[in-house]
Amino acid sequence: MSRRRPTMEDIARRAGVSKVAVSYALNDRPGVSPGTRAEIKRIAREIGWRPNSAARALTRARADAVGLVSSRPAQLLGAEPFFMGLISGMQDELAAQGKALTLQFVADAGQEMEVHRRWWGEGRIDGVLLTDLRTDDPRIALIRELGLPAVAIGHPDAAGGLPAVWSDDAAALGQTLRYLHTLGHRSVARVAGLRDLDHTARRDRAHRAVCAELGMGEPAIVHTDYSGEAGARAARGLLIRPDRPTAIVFDNDIMAVAGLSVADELGLSVPGELSLVAWDDSQLTRVVRPGITALNRDIPAYGRHAVRTLLTLVEEGWAECLEDGPARLLPRGSTGPVVGAVGGVAGAGASAAVATSVAVRPERVTADPA
Amino acid sequence: MSRRRPTMEDIARRAGVSKVAVSYALNDRPGVSPGTRAEIKRIAREIGWRPNSAARALTRARADAVGLVSSRPAQLLGAEPFFMGLISGMQDELAAQGKALTLQFVADAGQEMEVHRRWWGEGRIDGVLLTDLRTDDPRIALIRELGLPAVAIGHPDAAGGLPAVWSDDAAALGQTLRYLHTLGHRSVARVAGLRDLDHTARRDRAHRAVCAELGMGEPAIVHTDYSGEAGARAARGLLIRPDRPTAIVFDNDIMAVAGLSVADELGLSVPGELSLVAWDDSQLTRVVRPGITALNRDIPAYGRHAVRTLLTLVEEGWAECLEDGPARLLPRGSTGPVVGAVGGVAGAGASAAVATSVAVRPERVTADPA
Repeated sequence: MSRRRPTMEDIARRAGVSKVAVSYALNDRPGVSPGTRAEIKRIAREIGWRPNSAARALTRARADAVGLVSSRPAQLLGAEPFFMGLISGMQDELAAQGKALTLQFVADAGQEMEVHRRWWGEGRIDGVLLTDLRTDDPRIALIRELGLPAVAIGHPDAAGGLPAVWSDDAAALGQTLRYLHTLGHRSVARVAGLRDLDHTARRDRAHRAVCAELGMGEPAIVHTDYSGEAGARAARGLLIRPDRPTAIVFDNDIMAVAGLSVADELGLSVPGELSLVAWDDSQLTRVVRPGITALNRDIPAYGRHAVRTLLTLVEEGWAECLEDGPARLLPRGSTGPVVGAVGGVAGAGASAAVATSVAVRPERVTADPA
Repeated sequence: MSRRRPTMEDIARRAGVSKVAVSYALNDRPGVSPGTRAEIKRIAREIGWRPNSAARALTRARADAVGLVSSRPAQLLGAEPFFMGLISGMQDELAAQGKALTLQFVADAGQEMEVHRRWWGEGRIDGVLLTDLRTDDPRIALIRELGLPAVAIGHPDAAGGLPAVWSDDAAALGQTLRYLHTLGHRSVARVAGLRDLDHTARRDRAHRAVCAELGMGEPAIVHTDYSGEAGARAARGLLIRPDRPTAIVFDNDIMAVAGLSVADELGLSVPGELSLVAWDDSQLTRVVRPGITALNRDIPAYGRHAVRTLLTLVEEGWAECLEDGPARLLPRGSTGPVVGAVGGVAGAGASAAVATSVAVRPERVTADPA
C-alpha cells in the first residue's frame, strides 16, 4: 500500500475531468453538473481522499489564525508555568509568520468540540492545536469529520492518526526512577496529574513498569487536579503512611513546591529524609531552597514545533509527527542518597536501610510533630 | 459644552439626508453621490463625530472576538499567575457570550500597534483590551485614530480618555506600609516591576509619599523584569546593604518566593529578622513556608469586568470607567513585628532596635554564612 496521500489530481485523472472541476465539486461550489459532482465525490471516498489537505486550505480564504481550546480550568492553568510556556512558544512562531492565536477556555470536551465546529465553519481559523489528549479522545473523530487541520500535542498513539508533537514521558520517568534507585531509593511515589489524561495514564504505566523492572514493588500514585493545594494534600497523605516513600515525583512544579513545604511542616529534612523531583522545571523549582531537582525540557520550543507542524499541515496538507527530545533530569538540592544507602552498588544494604527507616519513622512523625 | 456624543442622526439632520445615507457615506459604501458623501464627511468632522460608537459597530459584521496584544515577554508572563488569572476571567465572560479571545505576543509597543491596526482593518475583532499602560502610552492615539473600541486595564489618568478598569494601587500600598509601620518597621524596601509601566511609577510615587507621611524616610526601590531571578538578585542586593530594610514588598509573587529563599540563604529568619509581602496573592504565596503575606484581589473578576466594559462599549458605543476594590492585605507568616519594637506606640524604640540590628547584622552575615 502506498503511503502517498490521494490528491485532487488522482481524482481528476480517474474521473476524466479537470482538477478545477474536482475542486469545485468537493467544495460544493457551482460550476460542475450534479452528475459529475456525485461521481467525483464517489471517487474521492473510494480512494480515501480527505479534505484535510492543501487543496481544502487553498480553496478557503486564510484566516491567518490558529485555534487553541482548553477545557482545563483556566485558574489551574494559570498556576503552572507549563501552559504559558507552551503558549509563549506557539506565539513566537505564529508572530514570526504574522498569524494570531485564538484562545478559548471551556467547561468540558463537549463544549470544546462545539467551538472547533463553529470556528472552522465560520472560517476563523486555519487549524487547531489539541492539548490534553484523553484516552479515546472524542475530539479526534470530530476533527476528522470536519476535515479541520489539527496537530495533537501528545503521544502519537493517542492522536488517532493526527500529526502529533510529543516527547517520550516514559523515557523521562525511567531515567528519573533509575537515578533515584541508584541513590538507594526503593519506594518512589508520584503525585500525578488528572487521571483521565492520556499522558497521566502513560506516566502511570511507565512508573509501575520501571519499578517492577528495578524490583521496587508497586509504587503509590495519587492523582490530583494539579493545584498546589491538592499537591500538598497528596504529599501529606503519602508522608504520614507507615510505609512512607523516601522520594516523591510531582507531575508539576507548583505541587513540588507544595511538597517541599509539607516536608518542612512534618519535620522531614530534604533531601536527608525525603527526595523530591518536579516535572516540569520552571522558575519555581529554581527559586526555592533547596532548589528542586526537575525534569527539564524546552517548553516554548515544544509550542513552536507544534505550530510549525500545524502550519505545514495547513500549507501542504500533510505533516509528519515530530518527537522532541525527552525531558532531561536536572539534579538540584532536593534529591540525595537514602541515609544508610551507598549508591547503586549497595542494593541489598540500601533495602535494609529503608526497612529500618520504615520501622522507626512513623514513631518519629507521631512523637515529634514539627 | 454638551457631553453627549454626536451621532449619525445629528449629521443626517444637518445635511438634510437620511441616516442610512449618512451610514453609507461614512462607511464608504455605494449608494450616495460623491458630492453628498463629501458633505457628510465634512459635517462629521466638524461636529466631532467619531466612528468609535455603536453606529460603527452596528454597520460592521461582528467578529465575536476581542483582541489582547502583549509586548511583555511571554516567558515572563508565564512565570506569574497574574496574567493567566486575568485571561481566565476574560475568558469566563467571553465564553458566556460565545465570543473568543484573540491573543498575540509581540516584541514591542510598535508591533503591538501594527497588530491592532491589522486586526481592526481585517474585521477580526470587535475591540481590544489594553494591558500594561505606559507613561504617555503611544497606543492610545492610534486607537482613537482607528476608532477601535478599547478598554484600558489600568488607572484612568493613564488611559487617555478610554474607559478604564482599575483598582487603587496607591490605597493598597498605603494600607501595607501602615501595617508594617505598626509592626515597627521603619525601612520598607520594594522590589518593583518594570520601570516604564504606569502602574509601577504610580506605586513608586505612593511608596515614597506614604513613607514620607509616616516619617520613614526615602525607601529603597529596585526595578526588575518580574522574573524570579531578578527578584532574588534585587532582594540580595538590598539585604547585604549595611542599612538593610526590615521589610520588603515584592511587585509579584514569584519574586516574593525568591526573596524568601534569599533570606534563608543569608541566614535571616522570616519574619523574625525580615518581613516579606507579595503583590499579588496566588497559589505560590500559600504553598511556601512560612506562607507569604500578600495583597489579594480577585484577578479573574478584574478580567471579567474588563471584558464586560469592552462589550458594553462595543454594543452601546459608550462605557463608564469601573473601579474594582483595592487589593486587600492578607497577613500570613512572613510578616511580624520588628524585634524590640512594640507596635506603633514605640516608634523611637523601634528605630533604635533597627539601628542596633544594622550595627551587628553585616558581621553576622559575613561571619556565619548559611
